[in-house]
Amino acid sequence: MVNTKNQQLMLIKNNIKFIPNYPKKGIIFRDISTLLANPNAYSTSITLLASHYQHYQLTKIIGVEARGFLFGAPLALILKVGFIPVRKAGKLPCNTINETYILEYGTGCLEIHKDSIVPGDKVLIVDDLLATGGTIEATVKLIRRLGGKVNDAAFIINLEYLGGNLLLKNIGVNTYSLVVFSE
Amino acid sequence: MVNTKNQQLMLIKNNIKFIPNYPKKGIIFRDISTLLANPNAYSTSITLLASHYQHYQLTKIIGVEARGFLFGAPLALILKVGFIPVRKAGKLPCNTINETYILEYGTGCLEIHKDSIVPGDKVLIVDDLLATGGTIEATVKLIRRLGGKVNDAAFIINLEYLGGNLLLKNIGVNTYSLVVFSE
Repeated sequence: MVNTKNQQLMLIKNNIKFIPNYPKKGIIFRDISTLLANPNAYSTSITLLASHYQHYQLTKIIGVEARGFLFGAPLALILKVGFIPVRKAGKLPCNTINETYILEYGTGCLEIHKDSIVPGDKVLIVDDLLATGGTIEATVKLIRRLGGKVNDAAFIINLEYLGGNLLLKNIGVNTYSLVVFSE
Repeated sequence: MVNTKNQQLMLIKNNIKFIPNYPKKGIIFRDISTLLANPNAYSTSITLLASHYQHYQLTKIIGVEARGFLFGAPLALILKVGFIPVRKAGKLPCNTINETYILEYGTGCLEIHKDSIVPGDKVLIVDDLLATGGTIEATVKLIRRLGGKVNDAAFIINLEYLGGNLLLKNIGVNTYSLVVFSE
């Protein structure tokens, strides 16, 4: 039985797998497959995020393709707010706007449906992992271009040593992460 | 207030957008963005799937990247079973097996972690939309190669006229879909 918040956080940490030299030599990849496969751990991660954000009066939650869908969508369902996907270029069928960005292992382009955010929306971004913060910064730009407010981003894992949280703080976005790795 | 099952199904159908000539001329794309953005409709879709499968004694739910994650993951959380992602080639960090397949608009390759399914697992596949059934057939093969049992696949939308449900029936997989389009 998992009771205290510390025990809950430990349950989540213990279900994150370390994979050395992936996707390239020298990088330790943190994998959430084990977490997803453990219903108690997975459910606890969503409950903790919901508990943290329940009084934020959010109107939309954005999940970043693809792993962000796994945490953002259940959170949106629990908080009873709309879920909006941000996807890689070419995947969304209606009118979109896009932002290019630099990420840890290359570059990319993210898109959002133009009509998915309206001025005044209070938006939370959710992703599985915060690394350098490039994809989240691009997502923040997309939301703000559509008139949405975004001051918060939530992660299961924060690789603090890559500085993503500082980059986001500089653009007015606070981060909340369940598990922080400082090296 | 949505009361009867028919009203619930109508709520879901009314939140699916038709997009003509996407991704190519002559094809009507059915888009779930509107459904995801409506917390009541989205939540109802998950509740209906959970109600249908609650007594199936499933041990794992598989969601197919990326839109399958949006329905498979919340369903796994409600039914308290492990969630296993099936992803496009090159996205999963541990040892995988893969299957190539033909889909409506091209070809692809799907992967699953080797250790994600164990013999005796009773698996449900979840995706947003059933078209020709190619990705689901490949997913069935992956599960069976790892010793899992899979007799069921669930969808929000079934494009019945593309024959996916017949293809799956021929390999011993029953389908359940919330909204069926027959033309």
